[in-house]
Amino acid sequence: MRQGILTLTTDFGTGGPYVAAMKGIILAAAPETQLVDVSHEIAPQNILEGAFVLAGIVDAFPPETVHLAVIDPGVGTPRRLVAAQIADQWFVLPDNGLLSGLLNGRSSPRIHEISNPAIWRSEVSATFHGRDILAPAAAYLLRGGDADQLGPRRQDVIRLANFEPRTDDGGLVGEVVFRDNFGNLITNVPNDRLDGRDWQIEIAGERIAGLSRTYGDHPPGTLVALIGSSRWLEIAVVNGDAARQLSAGPGTTVKFRRLDRTS
Amino acid sequence: MRQGILTLTTDFGTGGPYVAAMKGIILAAAPETQLVDVSHEIAPQNILEGAFVLAGIVDAFPPETVHLAVIDPGVGTPRRLVAAQIADQWFVLPDNGLLSGLLNGRSSPRIHEISNPAIWRSEVSATFHGRDILAPAAAYLLRGGDADQLGPRRQDVIRLANFEPRTDDGGLVGEVVFRDNFGNLITNVPNDRLDGRDWQIEIAGERIAGLSRTYGDHPPGTLVALIGSSRWLEIAVVNGDAARQLSAGPGTTVKFRRLDRTS
Amino acid sequence: MRQGILTLTTDFGTGGPYVAAMKGIILAAAPETQLVDVSHEIAPQNILEGAFVLAGIVDAFPPETVHLAVIDPGVGTPRRLVAAQIADQWFVLPDNGLLSGLLNGRSSPRIHEISNPAIWRSEVSATFHGRDILAPAAAYLLRGGDADQLGPRRQDVIRLANFEPRTDDGGLVGEVVFRDNFGNLITNVPNDRLDGRDWQIEIAGERIAGLSRTYGDHPPGTLVALIGSSRWLEIAVVNGDAARQLSAGPGTTVKFRRLDRTS
Repeated sequence: MRQGILTLTTDFGTGGPYVAAMKGIILAAAPETQLVDVSHEIAPQNILEGAFVLAGIVDAFPPETVHLAVIDPGVGTPRRLVAAQIADQWFVLPDNGLLSGLLNGRSSPRIHEISNPAIWRSEVSATFHGRDILAPAAAYLLRGGDADQLGPRRQDVIRLANFEPRTDDGGLVGEVVFRDNFGNLITNVPNDRLDGRDWQIEIAGERIAGLSRTYGDHPPGTLVALIGSSRWLEIAVVNGDAARQLSAGPGTTVKFRRLDRTS
Repeated sequence: MRQGILTLTTDFGTGGPYVAAMKGIILAAAPETQLVDVSHEIAPQNILEGAFVLAGIVDAFPPETVHLAVIDPGVGTPRRLVAAQIADQWFVLPDNGLLSGLLNGRSSPRIHEISNPAIWRSEVSATFHGRDILAPAAAYLLRGGDADQLGPRRQDVIRLANFEPRTDDGGLVGEVVFRDNFGNLITNVPNDRLDGRDWQIEIAGERIAGLSRTYGDHPPGTLVALIGSSRWLEIAVVNGDAARQLSAGPGTTVKFRRLDRTS
Repeated sequence: MRQGILTLTTDFGTGGPYVAAMKGIILAAAPETQLVDVSHEIAPQNILEGAFVLAGIVDAFPPETVHLAVIDPGVGTPRRLVAAQIADQWFVLPDNGLLSGLLNGRSSPRIHEISNPAIWRSEVSATFHGRDILAPAAAYLLRGGDADQLGPRRQDVIRLANFEPRTDDGGLVGEVVFRDNFGNLITNVPNDRLDGRDWQIEIAGERIAGLSRTYGDHPPGTLVALIGSSRWLEIAVVNGDAARQLSAGPGTTVKFRRLDRTS
């Protein structure tokens, strides 16, 4: 039998019945599914954080993986629910910007609105579309269902501006989009925007000259900038906590200035 | 081969070896099992919270699912361990009130004491019956074992009074049983106790007139009452945190008063 | 098809994309794998805590289980990555002391360095060897690969001194290595070092006479010492929080003094 992978990303926390309820719906319809929790600790209703996390996993999963993401401040109001096909994987989620990190630099993917009630749970709660609409839609795709049956094609989805660093006279202006468990600050500036040049990076009043290869190349306590494992530029303190040391976090501005020696 | 579902609900936290040890025992005996974590963040020894969470998942899981719950302040003392069959699913847990939310309004289910050492792990620790007795019993049921072999039938289990709202002259008096990740306050009053009437709800000195359909029907900051996704009445602040705003949480009294216009 | 078990233990937290990225790599290579999260809440870079948790699960898992552990302060520097075979299970991890609890009292296991790039991910990030080297190596073992292909045999791994309690004139001197979710303090002194004798235990200025069988044998609030479920001696307060009551935690000294009546 088909052994699909379903990942879950939510802001539900792991203290209540909500995540398990979605899994029950999935397994009742597609019992052989491999369930993978990505995170249920997205800050409540923080779409930017959800968008970063989704962008960080796509390269690791095989084709046909289905990613279910429920960060849904608009639940019960007329916002769209969609399934989008990116890198041969499906993303099933509210259309509110959650795909912004994934679509950075990509053209518009195949998108279906999820509007066909025949796919939904028979009774739909007004406050839990994750369980009653999105989970059944994800299970339908896991069982090899035809995406055309979910609902009509759409041209595009909402994209948050945060994942598009600005250019200015001096170089690039980006922002922190994620603080990880070690206090590392991941920015919205992907590796390929840095053109292989050397840069001076400015954040929270500090200046960092050039990129390091890894955390261990400098003495403990050194503030460094490096290309992280998901190819975004990140700011770190060797064996320390950059977020705490800089009092910085998601939303903090990060400026990239070309160094003279490389111009 | 049989592909059963086993859910786990504990107060162990996710920082130690304890949850994984139970899973190892399950998988050694029933390798094809689908493991689903419900929550391991039940407040230590908080049976009421565990009972709420179990009640919130049963409708989402298919028949023959086995639910293992270990919130067990009495471990090592003479309290009973039981397996109870509710809605064609099995619940394997200490008999201390954890089934209270599930049994609300239901007659007594089929119950077996788990007292047959032949089913247990060969060596039983005095402090971890979850791993050494309950997990083996759950694995036995997952493999299609006969529940009669677990131990003798019992007539009933312990039920906490908290899941039975009182009636008084003015209407109903209930309490908050759960605070979710968004600060929503879920009460012990199920939808069917509200008789389709309109009510004024009183909590922490505030009054809410009538039920809303969903969070998004009112401006941000509005205090609302609505039927939640598990059919309990809940108190929420639109795009806000009701628990913090009201300084309320599990145990807080909630009064339901009939509104004149519907009497 | 082969249905192997892969457990994961990290200090990544569960808020980001990192754990899921490792799981994606595993499942792309070994789709039938049973994934079991042990803990992702090891304190950042706390090898001692990771070593305790790994020691606490091995007895519960069947032969051929593969345990992947990534607490890796030295990522990107020249420290070794190894696979070690203990109790017919494989441990895939950085060689930095993570096996100390498991090897306590055991002779050196079969150890292979993981140095063959043919097994690695095609592109290796400088900051995430867990995803790019260790996860592929674990998947290789899950698929029945020959450990000799990972890299050359090694004689031993780094062992932390913390898991070897000292003897002195009065008895034994150990330390707390873990604080669990209930505030119980688990020490580095295994049951078999206590020789079935009675001991007086001294911790944080308090003295405990003799071992209890279980938490429930004394009134609430009593400070007790007992053999925990993983066979280490632990300090607990009945229905309370020993760590808070004693202001103690990992690193706190615990002295074991022979009681006269048993000498």
